[in-house]
Amino acid sequence: MRIGFVGLGQMGSAMARNLLAAGHQLTVWNRSAGKADGLGAEGARAAASPAEAADGADIVVTMLADDKAVEEVVFGDQGLLSGTRLHVSMSTISVALAERLTAAHAEAGGVLVSAPVFGRPAAAEAAKLFIAAAGPADARAACTPLFDAVGQRVFAVGDTPSQANLVKLSGNFMIMSAIEAMAEAMTLAEKGGVARETLLEVLTGTLFGSPVYQIYGDILVNDRFRPAGFAAPLGLKDMRLVGAAAEAARVPMPLLGVVRDHLLAALAQEGEEIDWSAIALPIRHGAGLG
Amino acid sequence: MRIGFVGLGQMGSAMARNLLAAGHQLTVWNRSAGKADGLGAEGARAAASPAEAADGADIVVTMLADDKAVEEVVFGDQGLLSGTRLHVSMSTISVALAERLTAAHAEAGGVLVSAPVFGRPAAAEAAKLFIAAAGPADARAACTPLFDAVGQRVFAVGDTPSQANLVKLSGNFMIMSAIEAMAEAMTLAEKGGVARETLLEVLTGTLFGSPVYQIYGDILVNDRFRPAGFAAPLGLKDMRLVGAAAEAARVPMPLLGVVRDHLLAALAQEGEEIDWSAIALPIRHGAGLG
Amino acid sequence: MRIGFVGLGQMGSAMARNLLAAGHQLTVWNRSAGKADGLGAEGARAAASPAEAADGADIVVTMLADDKAVEEVVFGDQGLLSGTRLHVSMSTISVALAERLTAAHAEAGGVLVSAPVFGRPAAAEAAKLFIAAAGPADARAACTPLFDAVGQRVFAVGDTPSQANLVKLSGNFMIMSAIEAMAEAMTLAEKGGVARETLLEVLTGTLFGSPVYQIYGDILVNDRFRPAGFAAPLGLKDMRLVGAAAEAARVPMPLLGVVRDHLLAALAQEGEEIDWSAIALPIRHGAGLG
Amino acid sequence: MRIGFVGLGQMGSAMARNLLAAGHQLTVWNRSAGKADGLGAEGARAAASPAEAADGADIVVTMLADDKAVEEVVFGDQGLLSGTRLHVSMSTISVALAERLTAAHAEAGGVLVSAPVFGRPAAAEAAKLFIAAAGPADARAACTPLFDAVGQRVFAVGDTPSQANLVKLSGNFMIMSAIEAMAEAMTLAEKGGVARETLLEVLTGTLFGSPVYQIYGDILVNDRFRPAGFAAPLGLKDMRLVGAAAEAARVPMPLLGVVRDHLLAALAQEGEEIDWSAIALPIRHGAGLG
Repeated sequence: MRIGFVGLGQMGSAMARNLLAAGHQLTVWNRSAGKADGLGAEGARAAASPAEAADGADIVVTMLADDKAVEEVVFGDQGLLSGTRLHVSMSTISVALAERLTAAHAEAGGVLVSAPVFGRPAAAEAAKLFIAAAGPADARAACTPLFDAVGQRVFAVGDTPSQANLVKLSGNFMIMSAIEAMAEAMTLAEKGGVARETLLEVLTGTLFGSPVYQIYGDILVNDRFRPAGFAAPLGLKDMRLVGAAAEAARVPMPLLGVVRDHLLAALAQEGEEIDWSAIALPIRHGAGLG
Repeated sequence: MRIGFVGLGQMGSAMARNLLAAGHQLTVWNRSAGKADGLGAEGARAAASPAEAADGADIVVTMLADDKAVEEVVFGDQGLLSGTRLHVSMSTISVALAERLTAAHAEAGGVLVSAPVFGRPAAAEAAKLFIAAAGPADARAACTPLFDAVGQRVFAVGDTPSQANLVKLSGNFMIMSAIEAMAEAMTLAEKGGVARETLLEVLTGTLFGSPVYQIYGDILVNDRFRPAGFAAPLGLKDMRLVGAAAEAARVPMPLLGVVRDHLLAALAQEGEEIDWSAIALPIRHGAGLG
Repeated sequence: MRIGFVGLGQMGSAMARNLLAAGHQLTVWNRSAGKADGLGAEGARAAASPAEAADGADIVVTMLADDKAVEEVVFGDQGLLSGTRLHVSMSTISVALAERLTAAHAEAGGVLVSAPVFGRPAAAEAAKLFIAAAGPADARAACTPLFDAVGQRVFAVGDTPSQANLVKLSGNFMIMSAIEAMAEAMTLAEKGGVARETLLEVLTGTLFGSPVYQIYGDILVNDRFRPAGFAAPLGLKDMRLVGAAAEAARVPMPLLGVVRDHLLAALAQEGEEIDWSAIALPIRHGAGLG
Repeated sequence: MRIGFVGLGQMGSAMARNLLAAGHQLTVWNRSAGKADGLGAEGARAAASPAEAADGADIVVTMLADDKAVEEVVFGDQGLLSGTRLHVSMSTISVALAERLTAAHAEAGGVLVSAPVFGRPAAAEAAKLFIAAAGPADARAACTPLFDAVGQRVFAVGDTPSQANLVKLSGNFMIMSAIEAMAEAMTLAEKGGVARETLLEVLTGTLFGSPVYQIYGDILVNDRFRPAGFAAPLGLKDMRLVGAAAEAARVPMPLLGVVRDHLLAALAQEGEEIDWSAIALPIRHGAGLG
């Protein structure tokens, strides 16, 4: 397929490489040009604007940092809005922006598929991402070659694009909640003389033997909060988007309030350069530890 | 071994049967005599008092409902305190009572091993319980034949008996926390038009593929809150014990406050006969659902 | 003084009348023209645009519903930005917008004084508003005739305009917090057989004898949630602004999370037409009452 | 009247002196005899046991630290149970103990009036306590001379003694809630460059001009947490009693969870010798201050 690819950050570059490796024709654009050049050596054509990346493409993919970046490449000068037939938004953006993009593309004669991904950069490089996809069934079907090239599994969430964003945000809320629960329980155990790793061994050895507890449990046991795998400010941004969706839908989420407050405390006490799992630190400080 | 077994409820009876099947000599006692008779047919001897069940036993096991029941069989008339060499407390009791039992047995010349279990009645019948054991190393070693007969795995928590109770209570807090997180996320998803099962499929298919999410996710998706697998009042009791341990250790646990409040709301709105996972109902009501 | 007055809602109209009564020359503008005509009979001149209201005025006052309305009259076509010497923003707006207005006016050669008010429409009519004012000292001094005509007391908050907005938002958070505390305590008392009014009598008769408890205590005792004195959606908007300021400043505010969740529950269960004090209803429902 | 008075702590001694000054015949008992001797010089007779203090008395007052102390003087050897006609319990005790005392006295042919007080030691010395009284109407009427001698106002709460304890505990919860709200708002203001005293001036000058904000606002502004006016461990005990009442009545109280967690954090970080208003310190630490 001819694919326009916008956004060549750590995640985007890895995905673009896998699309090239799968034999697709790529036209790429990135705010800072350097990154596009790198992919040029691997066969990608560098476009001078998002609109040029979209020109003649079967699918245009955006993989960007936040709502603001997506708004600029879609609604800005030389943006994607005109001339994009099928826009596959794979960034973690707000439910509200997904709804706005859906309406804007429809008006411009295009279609939006929301397909945010679960997975760290290593999973992107290994084409092992999980994809939550929502949008018109035929449009989702047209994305199959794209999804096959970058992911290990696709979840069909529904026909309304924003539903995929809601699922992605809910997933990040679930991760934060699991970290919160572990951090509180480990602090209680530690003050009772039980080593954190002992509690984690019991949890993962019984009912909690899944990646979220293994990955973050290991980080909490060994205090590996720096460098950040997923930075606390990005986690806070995602929790803000969950909160905005919950407020719009009139859904009280007290656990969301707890994790948001601990993210703020971690940022206030530890600075901006920490992993989102560092909410464990203010939780320990609250108990008079370290 | 010669084992005294006190407490023949749903869990205790299953455990006692497995001990008999493993060839141990059992002397059993239960407040209501009927249950002991049942086991008599399978080779157990019925004692007239806890003290008689302990008489001459290598190990005395207690598997009872709560602190009060344990206090009565240990400190009451004809209680276990005198004449028990090795008391293996497998009930879910408070950290404070475990500490009191440790001191009382030491004074009486006995030893306490705390060995609370993870698992539902079905797991007890299949001898597939998980056991968190704490106490003096040699005393724990002496329990190996006992543990082998009732469980699938033993976790060595430490040398202080109450540490096993802290781990067990932390585990139940972790389960409640996972249910809380799922219930909040499913409510948000549902109001956004995403079916609960769709969200659950994405969660268990990505980072959350462990029994706690599979078992309780299925209950939440299908509203199977009655009959109770683990009744809300027992869940509330356990959360109270977590809170008492946290208060004694000076550990703030905001997530504990959230789940405790939702247990109270579920009991106030739905009555006492529901599963602890029914905290999902007040969470939905708070969002104006059902 | 020659005063340009923008925003003739329930509060704004009352304030404008008091300015006319004090002998000031008023040029008024309101999105819907009808309201300006009404004041015309009392001596105000109706302007065709915000810019025209500002033309030649010593002070331009804005009294509008929210950030969006203020952004439009300041930054929109025929907006206030050019030609306003002294802009006195008396609306309840975000800290971020106050900072943006400060910078924009400075660039355009003008000055901003933030002077949000405490008080219901009746207080506005009686010229009994409380004013929290922040901005350059000389600019605040120049507002004295204006403040004297509409308020009973001015609090000097500081030299940075946005500080007055922070104080106003904190005040509304304090009111919501007092309502939350009363609603929880009254629910506990009611389930224990103590009438709400009995508890309120003890509170206001001892340590809590201030207007916030007298006014809202009476509403809670008598369930006077409709018609709304201050509508729940506006309360939610203000709590969102408090949350945005807290997030920007990295300040955890767990009590804010509690009141925000109860506002969402009240809106989900009771609809949009209720007073913000109706958070008492989901609190009671959570306890199984009414 | 002939009054038996049990419990001569800081509060009890002041109350006993005022009863003597009002011309009542006092027989006093205190665990440590020294305190009784002191009052002897002022005309009180020292009893050898609670029972002796009750012997022949029209009313027996208890003013003790907690449930345990009250249980001992009532149910212990030489306790008040037999021989007390009218027991006026003025301590801050649990709702559950008040119910137990009511039943026990009824069985023994006596009557209980619960009459906990609001006020610090200075108010006790000045006979300016506020009294929340509950119990049979005639029994409450019989207490009038007693109440007149120690208090400035009596609130008639109801005919069931424990209702007065519920009101007293609710009052202490309200105080903690007001401190929590002020501490969060002051922290937000402080990080925004607004002095704590400035915010307090606006609050007390508008809707919050009552003693609870004046007294505790001053403590928060000036960091006067030591020596403790009301020690954090006593505040934590009272919040535990509120929680026990809420749990028994099935009333979710999320704000109670917030203040309880902050009391635990204050105790963990600052030690046991601080005022309960020191919850402001962990709130500030959470925001990276001091």
